[in-house]
Amino acid sequence: MELKVIAYARNGFSDKFGIPRQSREESSIVTRIVFTPDYSSPDAIRGISDYSHLWLLWGFSANRRFRHAESEPEQMSDSLTVRPPRLGGNTRVGVFATRSPFRPNPIGLTSVRLLRVESGELIVSGADLLDGTPIYDIKPYLSFSDSHPDACNGFAEKSRDYRLHVDWSSCVYAESDSVRKEALRRDLEEILSQDPRPAYQTDSERIYRLDYAGHTVAFKVQGDTVVVESLNPKD
Amino acid sequence: MELKVIAYARNGFSDKFGIPRQSREESSIVTRIVFTPDYSSPDAIRGISDYSHLWLLWGFSANRRFRHAESEPEQMSDSLTVRPPRLGGNTRVGVFATRSPFRPNPIGLTSVRLLRVESGELIVSGADLLDGTPIYDIKPYLSFSDSHPDACNGFAEKSRDYRLHVDWSSCVYAESDSVRKEALRRDLEEILSQDPRPAYQTDSERIYRLDYAGHTVAFKVQGDTVVVESLNPKD
Repeated sequence: MELKVIAYARNGFSDKFGIPRQSREESSIVTRIVFTPDYSSPDAIRGISDYSHLWLLWGFSANRRFRHAESEPEQMSDSLTVRPPRLGGNTRVGVFATRSPFRPNPIGLTSVRLLRVESGELIVSGADLLDGTPIYDIKPYLSFSDSHPDACNGFAEKSRDYRLHVDWSSCVYAESDSVRKEALRRDLEEILSQDPRPAYQTDSERIYRLDYAGHTVAFKVQGDTVVVESLNPKD
Repeated sequence: MELKVIAYARNGFSDKFGIPRQSREESSIVTRIVFTPDYSSPDAIRGISDYSHLWLLWGFSANRRFRHAESEPEQMSDSLTVRPPRLGGNTRVGVFATRSPFRPNPIGLTSVRLLRVESGELIVSGADLLDGTPIYDIKPYLSFSDSHPDACNGFAEKSRDYRLHVDWSSCVYAESDSVRKEALRRDLEEILSQDPRPAYQTDSERIYRLDYAGHTVAFKVQGDTVVVESLNPKD
């Protein structure tokens, strides 16, 4: 089967670095779903506003796969096992027992909250997608067949509540627009709390830089705290 | 993107007629997931038993699409709208607001319960798949990102609790093995209660025949009741 791109994701995740590893229900980060010309008719989404949640089927782009490859240099896309960062990077599990991007068919699956339809685009929250990600299908979420709140999460359970504290107290800002700054800070707080460092890095003095929504944030990670150093418009 | 088949579904749904329209958590119908040679290594599913539920991404086969086409003759696969049977067949909704098989990329998405791993195969329940359906990906179900029990189900809410009563009292059996008969009856009860008739058919005297697990069941539908006429090994 050959897949056609029906839409692209548009958001502030311009960088391979910083995308959440899994979508989160409570995410406030907004993504626009922009249909390709063949599917941009209002007909294709008629009735979709009656649903609160949607499924996106999308492609792990080369960029995203590269982001993971950097931290997992031995990871081959034709391997049947992967080494999840959250298991410390030494334990191999089967590719079909993970949501790793290194899959025989690199299709991602993400549930999102539908906020609204605007100018023929879907405005959603909770998408763990890089800006420009190709989307292959959109389906309504059906709670009676898709929701299993008591499912056993295997090793992924360990990452369920993993969060870092974000400390802005020593941040130097170049941004003067305070409304814009607050929105940026809210999104970045969510992104940084999920520990965007490449896996297995523990140098507490190393400064990392992450691009988001036209800005660059610099930070280091000390213990369970992300210390933000600066937030500047991207050069 | 071109997809590789990683496995095939094996179950009693030999016929396009009778497949449930949506998977159900409580389904007792068992499907075996049989990997293709490239992916049949135990490595590929190492650790999968730690999860209670899985996602299957699979292909709507020509057979399955035909099953729907019979009841929806005007349905074209390149149309941006579909007419869901549960809306009476006259209301058009956008293809991305339905789980219809008539999609730009005919990929199905089904969550199943993992019962056990047996001889390198996954034994699952709840799959709404035709026997022989190609599977493109298997992912662990993660309750913290995939489960939204309070999601609004749009028009699909109307079909949530739709069930017919199944009346076996006038059934003529050719099957002599009573254990086998009980297992068959349990599966068929579930299948028939979901009203496998083609959409928009209301003739209460018409006899329908459905093949399942090497048997043929004959039935008619009178009001909210499926009256089973006979259950015989398939010719």
